[in-house]
Amino acid sequence: MSTPPIVSSPDPSLGSCPLPLSDYPSVQMAHGGGGKLSQQLIEGLLVPSFDNPTLSALHDGAVFTAGGARLAFSTDSYVVRPIFFPGGDIGSLAVHGTVNDLAMCGARPIALSCGLILEEGLPMASLRAVVASMRAAARAVGVSIVTGDTKVVDRGKGDGIYINTAGIGIVADGIVIDPRRARPGDAVLLSGRIADHGIAILSVREGLEFESPIESDSAPLHDLVARLLDRLGADVHVLRDPTRGGVASATNEIAARAGVGIRLDEPSIPVSEPVRGACELLGLDPLYVANEGKLLAIVAREAAESALDVLRSHALGAEAAIIGEVVEGRAGVVTLRSSIGGSRIVDLLTGEQLPRIC
Amino acid sequence: MSTPPIVSSPDPSLGSCPLPLSDYPSVQMAHGGGGKLSQQLIEGLLVPSFDNPTLSALHDGAVFTAGGARLAFSTDSYVVRPIFFPGGDIGSLAVHGTVNDLAMCGARPIALSCGLILEEGLPMASLRAVVASMRAAARAVGVSIVTGDTKVVDRGKGDGIYINTAGIGIVADGIVIDPRRARPGDAVLLSGRIADHGIAILSVREGLEFESPIESDSAPLHDLVARLLDRLGADVHVLRDPTRGGVASATNEIAARAGVGIRLDEPSIPVSEPVRGACELLGLDPLYVANEGKLLAIVAREAAESALDVLRSHALGAEAAIIGEVVEGRAGVVTLRSSIGGSRIVDLLTGEQLPRIC
Repeated sequence: MSTPPIVSSPDPSLGSCPLPLSDYPSVQMAHGGGGKLSQQLIEGLLVPSFDNPTLSALHDGAVFTAGGARLAFSTDSYVVRPIFFPGGDIGSLAVHGTVNDLAMCGARPIALSCGLILEEGLPMASLRAVVASMRAAARAVGVSIVTGDTKVVDRGKGDGIYINTAGIGIVADGIVIDPRRARPGDAVLLSGRIADHGIAILSVREGLEFESPIESDSAPLHDLVARLLDRLGADVHVLRDPTRGGVASATNEIAARAGVGIRLDEPSIPVSEPVRGACELLGLDPLYVANEGKLLAIVAREAAESALDVLRSHALGAEAAIIGEVVEGRAGVVTLRSSIGGSRIVDLLTGEQLPRIC
Repeated sequence: MSTPPIVSSPDPSLGSCPLPLSDYPSVQMAHGGGGKLSQQLIEGLLVPSFDNPTLSALHDGAVFTAGGARLAFSTDSYVVRPIFFPGGDIGSLAVHGTVNDLAMCGARPIALSCGLILEEGLPMASLRAVVASMRAAARAVGVSIVTGDTKVVDRGKGDGIYINTAGIGIVADGIVIDPRRARPGDAVLLSGRIADHGIAILSVREGLEFESPIESDSAPLHDLVARLLDRLGADVHVLRDPTRGGVASATNEIAARAGVGIRLDEPSIPVSEPVRGACELLGLDPLYVANEGKLLAIVAREAAESALDVLRSHALGAEAAIIGEVVEGRAGVVTLRSSIGGSRIVDLLTGEQLPRIC
């Protein structure tokens, strides 16, 4: 296929030249937003400081061998606001998020830790509800919360509750899921509709009401991944859950890591009508909005239809689609072909689109 | 030895009957203090909710087998205030603390995760200094920070920086370190002087000046533990680092878990003169003050002298002492024999002695 001419970036906030990290005297919200400033902080400070090949892989988690076992290890802190939202809460999100990060390493999740940072004055009823939600989510996945820690900070030094979960998973022999395995010709699959989580959070935060309520897609993806790996094995090259920064950021990171281009096909990317409407209303591009129950799978071209079958046969992948392909050409560049045939670059955001979405 | 009569609890805040968890409508600072309210929150809500035998062991970390490997897994969030203090900072503390929790499971630390929760406006120079400190601490231990996450919260919703570290370690075959293994006759050893960390933090916070500056004892104990296990093997029954709540809380937890009594001998417990003086000035009992580079070892009586040799031959254990013994009698009760021969119960604190010490 020939590449249509690249028109332009549609949004001035997508400018490609943020200040270097050293020019920021203090931490900005956007340093946690999953876009360019996050990338600068991670690649400019954290990765060089903690220098080791496992971290440098910049995967959703680390994969290494210890005591003869192939382990995956991942961590995430959850600071979502509000802590209860349509379709979930910070507790279920903290379980699903880390389970999914392990799954994106090709791992079967085994055990989670739970670190609570509570603000003095948090209603005990809220804490109970969040803990019950973590319990239910962990049970549904079949993963145990085996160790934990609780800290309390003074009133005005937190925001009710922050949760860190870390997780350990086991990676089967022969499975190597790594962003660097994306290669030209591979198919890019998405397991379902995008942007539900971010819009659900934002609608509560902004007091927006829609005809049909928009719920977070927060869900555990371990089973979907297990089925993909069972059926396709080594033909699954990359897995990524497009959370902060959405599909746009996730595909950018993969393209940069693998040194390839990715071409996405806009009409193939499923977005529900209410979410599309909300995005238009709010001036948001759904491609940048967070998901918490979707995955991107980059698979060998010849395995694409099988992968689609596997995804669609699962409740969490019923609306799966092939949304693009890995291409040669400008390394690290993601392009989007629109329904009218134009093409534009899908860049990392410079600023913060939706703070504290997870 | 006969038990001298128990006189009384010396401090009204040591009252033994706090309100049940259900009577607190909201989270109190003391729910994170390591005393009775912490215990209520953990044993009354978290452990029953996340119900599983590994968590119920209430150890410093979880030990379980996965993929054929015997793993230890532990997590802690660090919210210490101020973030820089004499003898360390939140970065080195976050490495030492989790390394030590793994070591207290009898594990060799392998890998750490790092979850940063940054407050908007944190000076970039502070972040750089903390990260450099984590790097140096991890290198000194020989452990890699293999995975991480960064979140930014709005100004006024954090306190500069909170750090969660989780860690994975490997436990050698035959090593079973468990608070339930304390049995009457066992010796209780302490690796050195107590209360340095808590007093160092407090002295900065309160602007206190002493003739000789008091520094935190923050240090990694993995090597000390490795030597103990090499030399004593299965004769090492329990290991515990007396952090929040100090030696008093740690021994109480062990006594309760094992269903034994513990008798401590006050004159044997090393406290430096400046720290003793500061404690008197501040009205604090050093037995309840946090340590970040000390361990309690409960070992078979016949191995006590060997254990003392091992500890004293290491720089971090030069002032080690045998400070008491495990006794039959009232399960869960810790008593302290004073230098004048009286004896008192050492209870868990009800309230919060030193908030945000780690």
